[in-house]
Amino acid sequence: MNFKKAKRVYKGIIFEVYQWSQKMFDGSRQTYEWLKRPPTVEIIGVTKNKKIMVLEQRQPHTKIFFSMPGGKVDKSENLKQAALRELREETGYAAKKLKLWKSFEEYTTMDWTINMFIARDCRKAGALAPDPGEKIKVRYFSFEQFLKLVEKDNFWCSRYFSKHLYKCLMHPKAKKEFYQELFG
Amino acid sequence: MNFKKAKRVYKGIIFEVYQWSQKMFDGSRQTYEWLKRPPTVEIIGVTKNKKIMVLEQRQPHTKIFFSMPGGKVDKSENLKQAALRELREETGYAAKKLKLWKSFEEYTTMDWTINMFIARDCRKAGALAPDPGEKIKVRYFSFEQFLKLVEKDNFWCSRYFSKHLYKCLMHPKAKKEFYQELFG
Repeated sequence: MNFKKAKRVYKGIIFEVYQWSQKMFDGSRQTYEWLKRPPTVEIIGVTKNKKIMVLEQRQPHTKIFFSMPGGKVDKSENLKQAALRELREETGYAAKKLKLWKSFEEYTTMDWTINMFIARDCRKAGALAPDPGEKIKVRYFSFEQFLKLVEKDNFWCSRYFSKHLYKCLMHPKAKKEFYQELFG
Repeated sequence: MNFKKAKRVYKGIIFEVYQWSQKMFDGSRQTYEWLKRPPTVEIIGVTKNKKIMVLEQRQPHTKIFFSMPGGKVDKSENLKQAALRELREETGYAAKKLKLWKSFEEYTTMDWTINMFIARDCRKAGALAPDPGEKIKVRYFSFEQFLKLVEKDNFWCSRYFSKHLYKCLMHPKAKKEFYQELFG
């Protein structure tokens, strides 16, 4: 989306709506509408004994689901700070090593970047501090178990990451490379 | 989302935004924000000689991508009418047999239902009639080729359908069942 031409027509709590006049292939114009929401971070947190941390979560309007730790980036912090904070709040773990793994757009008519981090050598640092709108338990998965989560209906993950997990399940080379990225 | 409690705070061309006051687990309340967009249809169109039709498409603001035929349901039509119209406009084909295959929600904080149809015994009925914001070529894929599309980065499909295609690639039983559904 070209934000220089686009005009913001709505700003809410999470979502903003933009519109712009788009020239069609036949020369006519149509108003296009686009959404924007703040970037989020997600963290693949790996513990010292090679387990990957996944949240078993419930929110006031949902059933139980599994997801990666993560959340919105606050205005006062950069991506890395947001990743460390969310990891700490949602798992109780602190990471010794943190690196940005991939940034991607989730959705075709929405400006929303998900920034996914790999956190290695995670160590317990204290209790969870979830939002009042979250009930969280931390679950620990082996690499093999983790990949297979993608086939579950109640594992909520981004389109991009889901594609990556399937790729690892189907292609031994991709799986080996991902293992290297996570465990070195 | 509970639309009885929710209040519409924005209505645009495609998107509406709703807010409601949600009770948290600790008794406090927070305003939740939700999106709504009109339902869409997508069609798995199967020709007489067992090919599946996929669009090779470009829109004014995109690169070339592949997708299923489909689009928004107009206010004057039901789901089935929308599916037949979109199939006709975007492929030039008419379907002898049409059935709703699955309806699903695409996105966790958006009320948006995608209704996916299987159209069997499709026959050429005339020229394409794409929107002025679409450049379309129809491509014909065998069942095997079609399943593998899901691994391409420029195949745009819903989260649910993508999961289904991966399932078919990985599990012979699911693949056989889907083949039956498409070709009888």
